[in-house]
Amino acid sequence: MHSPDRGAIRELSRDEIDAFLLEQRIARLGCHAGGLTYVVPVIYAYDGECVYAVTTEGQKVAMMRESPRVCVEVDEYDADGRGSWRSVIAYGEYEELGGDDVGLALAALREAFGREAPADGGRGLGPGVVAFRIRLDELTGRAVAR
Amino acid sequence: MHSPDRGAIRELSRDEIDAFLLEQRIARLGCHAGGLTYVVPVIYAYDGECVYAVTTEGQKVAMMRESPRVCVEVDEYDADGRGSWRSVIAYGEYEELGGDDVGLALAALREAFGREAPADGGRGLGPGVVAFRIRLDELTGRAVAR
Repeated sequence: MHSPDRGAIRELSRDEIDAFLLEQRIARLGCHAGGLTYVVPVIYAYDGECVYAVTTEGQKVAMMRESPRVCVEVDEYDADGRGSWRSVIAYGEYEELGGDDVGLALAALREAFGREAPADGGRGLGPGVVAFRIRLDELTGRAVAR
Repeated sequence: MHSPDRGAIRELSRDEIDAFLLEQRIARLGCHAGGLTYVVPVIYAYDGECVYAVTTEGQKVAMMRESPRVCVEVDEYDADGRGSWRSVIAYGEYEELGGDDVGLALAALREAFGREAPADGGRGLGPGVVAFRIRLDELTGRAVAR
């Protein structure tokens, strides 16, 4: 089977982008502060509007607090063994969650990962743990089928 | 089997970082120019010092020409089905290759990918195609075994 557009780069629709973000697990966050550009992987959940993650205090949290506009990149390469790939690049504002909003992040992660997700057991997140979301805008996706 | 440090984050040695970069295929480049932070995946080859890639003219090339200091991120999640992961974050200067140096990039990609790699067939790269390398410094790697 040789489709006419085999190997050509195709733009993903918003529905395809959402489906891809719902099925993937790792996003790379790109942030920039103090002259440094930093890319770091995070395990995330997606609810159709926001990426949610829980992390610990550190370089990426400090940078995103200083410069909240971040890039979110998700890709998948060669899942079919033929070199096909999909990638999504989006932007959004880093928003730290506190109080009841922490539950939004934990619920999204539980929905995505079941028992693997962190739980607060009603006792809060613990010292040094940070929950955040990034409301995505400017989403673009591309795919090549081989 | 429960190793005492099961689940703990471990720093990778330089040898482990090099082995990981040699075995992986996709790097995410983080660049920043004109107030925008951009993360984009590239298929790369690594020779122990530099990441090599071939791409087309576009946003990432324009941004890296303007601001050559970039972040290179490579990760692998859940290759064992238990949630273990490894990631490497490094920095380096974008260096565009021309003339005979294009052969360095193509040779590295052929070494890594065999016949999948682009070939110039002695005719150069063609219009709009860009070969570049990033000589890595400040490499750090982390791993969690589960």
